[in-house]
Amino acid sequence: MILDFFKANFSKDKKLYQKLYNILGFYPSNISLYKVAITHNSFKHHLSKDSKTGNNERLEFLGDAVLGMIVAEKLYLKFPYQNEGFLTETRSKIVGRTKLNQIARKMGIHQILLFDSKLKNNPVFLDSISGNAFESLVGAIYLDKGFEFTKIFIINKILEQHIDFEALLLQELSYKAKLVKWAQKEKRIIDFNLKSVDIEHKRKIYEVSILLDGEELVTGKNHSKKIAEEIASEKSCVLLAI
Amino acid sequence: MILDFFKANFSKDKKLYQKLYNILGFYPSNISLYKVAITHNSFKHHLSKDSKTGNNERLEFLGDAVLGMIVAEKLYLKFPYQNEGFLTETRSKIVGRTKLNQIARKMGIHQILLFDSKLKNNPVFLDSISGNAFESLVGAIYLDKGFEFTKIFIINKILEQHIDFEALLLQELSYKAKLVKWAQKEKRIIDFNLKSVDIEHKRKIYEVSILLDGEELVTGKNHSKKIAEEIASEKSCVLLAI
Repeated sequence: MILDFFKANFSKDKKLYQKLYNILGFYPSNISLYKVAITHNSFKHHLSKDSKTGNNERLEFLGDAVLGMIVAEKLYLKFPYQNEGFLTETRSKIVGRTKLNQIARKMGIHQILLFDSKLKNNPVFLDSISGNAFESLVGAIYLDKGFEFTKIFIINKILEQHIDFEALLLQELSYKAKLVKWAQKEKRIIDFNLKSVDIEHKRKIYEVSILLDGEELVTGKNHSKKIAEEIASEKSCVLLAI
Repeated sequence: MILDFFKANFSKDKKLYQKLYNILGFYPSNISLYKVAITHNSFKHHLSKDSKTGNNERLEFLGDAVLGMIVAEKLYLKFPYQNEGFLTETRSKIVGRTKLNQIARKMGIHQILLFDSKLKNNPVFLDSISGNAFESLVGAIYLDKGFEFTKIFIINKILEQHIDFEALLLQELSYKAKLVKWAQKEKRIIDFNLKSVDIEHKRKIYEVSILLDGEELVTGKNHSKKIAEEIASEKSCVLLAI
């Protein structure tokens, strides 16, 4: 790390080192990888001869896979009670084009991109190549710093700062939202009540009841309170034919 | 590793440890992950309560991502002159359903699978759940042994033994095949001739010429002899309007 700092300050690429530091939060060790990562196909004077094309498309392929895997593991560990359908869907929300372009914009990746300057007044193009360059940068970081470093970078700098996991979970849990919406429309009163908490195989089990106009309608049980509510909401939707 | 060996030999799961060793080439550290990995959704008496469902679908999601990333890196490094289109296509040939089912069958994964025995006479079903369980096992290995171990396992035990990278490259390099086929049909004689080998930036550059009925038609240059042939073949196809 100290070596990277010296390299950054006594290199002909001092400015690029500094910009990358500002965006990524660390100094690159092998700057040539990052030069490839920021070079879009439209840029005529490719800085680097490291790869066949000199543009960032191969690194984008690699970075996409690295990012996909790190996000997969994060979701797997963060949502131990969600099935594989939820994990797949949530991952595509995080690593999908729209979200990645948005993250890239917030990070300021467009400031370091190399591309055909004729295209600079096209914001859609800029957003899209920034999102791709973000993936290429992930590929460069992986090759430069290794897996564990990249994982920590993605989790701390990207996921924790740009992704609202609670919102993703709630988006998915739709029966509760459906039930609440119905009650508002029909002017009925829905209450969620934590009925009991048991311990089973050393883990808590929540029992949630749903009260309709003050009367218990159904109950739901799960290790997660949220999912217990969702189970009870699903039962209610069936009962009330919502 | 020695500890894993002792665990394996003095455990109530001794048989499973041994079967896993025979299939994977190492002893698991945390056997419960592997129990989940081999448990198909149709199996009624789930061995493990580690996950919500007790079946291998969540681990399959994780393993798919881990496998995809390791294969992406392998291809990225193995084919430095191929573009991202080739890398994407080649990866899907390797991690696609057909190939994974085939690999799982050769490894004998069906021998350790837990599933509803009513389904055991359905070979298509067996193949398919074996392929899925292979991915789940990759997920289990990753959680159990970490990234570097899994990478070495995938490269040495899976890719090097089950994937013919040369054939994948040749499948892709189609102009040469096209040209040779044309010559056979038209009864013309095509020869590929290595014209020169230069050194440029410390790396070899091959120049290949194509002779049509003994006369030089075109040449192609590349760091890879195969790709130089392909470049020359492409030029020939254009010239000869094939």
